[in-house]
Amino acid sequence: MTGQKEDPEGSRFLTELGSLLDPAGLLTGADVRVRGVGWASLGSCQAMAIARPANTEEVVAILEICRRHVVSVVPLGGGTGLVEGAVAAEHELLLSLERMRSEPQIDPMTRTAVVDAGVTLEQLQNAADAHNLVFPLDLGARGSATIGGNIATNAGGNRVIRFGMMREMVLGLEVVLADGTLLSSLNRMLKNNAGYDLKQLFIGSEGTLGVITRACLRLREKWRSQNAALLSLTSFDNVLKLLKFTDARLGGSLSAFEAMWGGFYDTVTAPHNGIPAPLDRGQPYYVLIEALGGDSPGDRERFETLLAEIYDSGVLQDAAVAESLIQTMSFWQIRDAVEKLLELGPMIMFDVSLPISAMEEYVAGVRERLAARWPDHRCIVWGHLGDSNLHLWITVHSSDPGDRAQVEEIVYAPLHEVGGSISAEHGIGLEKRAYLSLTRTDPEISLMRLLKQTLDPEGILNPGKVIY
Amino acid sequence: MTGQKEDPEGSRFLTELGSLLDPAGLLTGADVRVRGVGWASLGSCQAMAIARPANTEEVVAILEICRRHVVSVVPLGGGTGLVEGAVAAEHELLLSLERMRSEPQIDPMTRTAVVDAGVTLEQLQNAADAHNLVFPLDLGARGSATIGGNIATNAGGNRVIRFGMMREMVLGLEVVLADGTLLSSLNRMLKNNAGYDLKQLFIGSEGTLGVITRACLRLREKWRSQNAALLSLTSFDNVLKLLKFTDARLGGSLSAFEAMWGGFYDTVTAPHNGIPAPLDRGQPYYVLIEALGGDSPGDRERFETLLAEIYDSGVLQDAAVAESLIQTMSFWQIRDAVEKLLELGPMIMFDVSLPISAMEEYVAGVRERLAARWPDHRCIVWGHLGDSNLHLWITVHSSDPGDRAQVEEIVYAPLHEVGGSISAEHGIGLEKRAYLSLTRTDPEISLMRLLKQTLDPEGILNPGKVIY
Repeated sequence: MTGQKEDPEGSRFLTELGSLLDPAGLLTGADVRVRGVGWASLGSCQAMAIARPANTEEVVAILEICRRHVVSVVPLGGGTGLVEGAVAAEHELLLSLERMRSEPQIDPMTRTAVVDAGVTLEQLQNAADAHNLVFPLDLGARGSATIGGNIATNAGGNRVIRFGMMREMVLGLEVVLADGTLLSSLNRMLKNNAGYDLKQLFIGSEGTLGVITRACLRLREKWRSQNAALLSLTSFDNVLKLLKFTDARLGGSLSAFEAMWGGFYDTVTAPHNGIPAPLDRGQPYYVLIEALGGDSPGDRERFETLLAEIYDSGVLQDAAVAESLIQTMSFWQIRDAVEKLLELGPMIMFDVSLPISAMEEYVAGVRERLAARWPDHRCIVWGHLGDSNLHLWITVHSSDPGDRAQVEEIVYAPLHEVGGSISAEHGIGLEKRAYLSLTRTDPEISLMRLLKQTLDPEGILNPGKVIY
Repeated sequence: MTGQKEDPEGSRFLTELGSLLDPAGLLTGADVRVRGVGWASLGSCQAMAIARPANTEEVVAILEICRRHVVSVVPLGGGTGLVEGAVAAEHELLLSLERMRSEPQIDPMTRTAVVDAGVTLEQLQNAADAHNLVFPLDLGARGSATIGGNIATNAGGNRVIRFGMMREMVLGLEVVLADGTLLSSLNRMLKNNAGYDLKQLFIGSEGTLGVITRACLRLREKWRSQNAALLSLTSFDNVLKLLKFTDARLGGSLSAFEAMWGGFYDTVTAPHNGIPAPLDRGQPYYVLIEALGGDSPGDRERFETLLAEIYDSGVLQDAAVAESLIQTMSFWQIRDAVEKLLELGPMIMFDVSLPISAMEEYVAGVRERLAARWPDHRCIVWGHLGDSNLHLWITVHSSDPGDRAQVEEIVYAPLHEVGGSISAEHGIGLEKRAYLSLTRTDPEISLMRLLKQTLDPEGILNPGKVIY
């Protein structure tokens, strides 16, 4: 009757944001709902609004406004995370860095790149390539995933065994803290022991301790040879022997050691999928190895000699060496064709790590417990074995949350005994936080909470993600 | 008159410690004074006492006693640091982990080692070697420096370009916090994104945030070939070309790129030192490169071919390729013979990092300003060039603190403009803390103080080191 708005506080907040940002900088209503909530999720974005700042100064100003109005902020990168780490509720502001993606500044001599958070991984890879350099992080979502998101989640991917995770590639960061402080720490050197290495706090903390706006990243000289082979093996013991052998003998050039349990290979290369199977199907294990070197064609000759040697030793069942870059790509196509698994049923996706010496027994145990409850389940296993990282996609042909919880228990519980982790590379987000205590101790979680409380006392940065 | 002790509180504190520890666990009086204060310092240890716990439980108990009595604790590793990071005043307790050095537990399959903090670097290297593995960190003080100290200072050394600093080799840590909490976080996997990566707080923070008692470290397969060459060059531009060329062409096997300015090489190989000079003296730059590979003798052939190619391109003045492991060692002997520099006068030692593209001008500027004030100064320059790390040892033939301060100003001030760092690998300790703000911003230093205050509210852990 008096014309008062239903939500004067939220309205004042949005008005203030609107006067700070240009029209493209603030989305509300239908412009918000039209957006999804992530690669693997259905539903539409429920955020109160989406702020799309054009530069770091606007990020600072946005956080100041949010703090004043005590509105929570969910930072958003490319939206390709898999653990509900960038899901915003209706009382929260989604802070997307998608407009902060100016051309990366590459310095070919120091081999560094200064990159805006909203730059996609592929954009950076291409910019480096133009200078005959590489940014070695690589993962399937390269076209959408952003550098800011890669840092906030400490992304892994296909070449960790050689180049490490995102953490190892970050030299310096620019971060906006919860109180609006701009922490500009864009170190460009490989070595800098002048005081605490603050950037480590923000790498992998999923936007809960600060908003990453820019980074200085380490680039590498471009490789001149790329050799790959697809191998089949009859026992897990032989897979482990192969890992030790190739890691020792490829002398720093081994860049991928990707294992696929038989079910993965057989499903992906099923005739109706149109993906050729270079090796006979039906073996228990397949491994894709790749070496990146500086000496072509010498590297090729060595790679073949080495494979002949391991073949003669009886470790391999069969082997196919890629004869061309196209064939290398076709091997990777098998490894990357995870979407073909979706035809088996609604999938529950896991990303765990555990000591490789415990893997065979762990997978057998998970399968046994699944079979006891769901005889027709499918459990597909593959992963970055050289990094102790397995992916399990499991279907029990049900979308029931109770079934899901039972499957999660079966997968996560045994990790505790073997010192494994409920997340190797995807992070915790909302999805896994209930299980965090399975792989982190009470004093660890207390210290995480203390850090969160210290850096974000009002709890406005991505609240409820990781810890709660 | 009443028989009261002069220092009843200190005395009660020592009595309590004494009843906790066995007789070998607590040193006082002359047993303390007989000890030095570090590799590069004269004088005797001034600490109130030295506690030498036998296990982690005793470290926990010691910190609880210290907290109750508000006595400061200075953690001590091998005592080979160079920045007064483990110097204890007379009201402080020195906490030496020298008795915690049981045999490292090596797991050859997961290629990890669980190591007590007091184990020396060399002890770990040898233990890994017995399993045909390597722990790749290496530095001159390997026989004394401890793993705990290496972690607390994020040690660098000779092979960072290939294997990273200590930070990259730590998978998990056990740490005792200032309040006596035991933080056991002995992760064994290469990948673990389950929550905040807490170990990063303690690596490189020089004992100011916690006492490291144990670590799980990443080992590598042992290399099968080691090739080295000593090269001379006539311009810094050619040194940079050589770095890019070797890094690209050695495809992941380049393990050292150590540059020596002419003054270093000429001083060390002066005839009276008895260290042979494989290349003519008198050139402006020398570089020692090393490659570690998995394929002997194939690697040897490739190394020679590559050197011939770079030689033919005109980048090198002269080259000597090591014909044997003994000759490789003799090249390293030149690089490591820093003690020969001491004959030039009392040395002020610096460890800085800066973008390699700025190095030539930086060194010229430092020399010019030194020459203007001290025409007879000597400024010897060398370093881990591939890591952007230079060491400068400077003598102005004076031990006067005022002269020292002037030299520090000349070396440190220009780092600010080029985005360099006052410490690449040695840390800050007491020695460099006054200069920290030259290379870290006010918000960075404020955040360091906030972390210190949060983790050690009573300020009992190595107070005054790094920040103050």
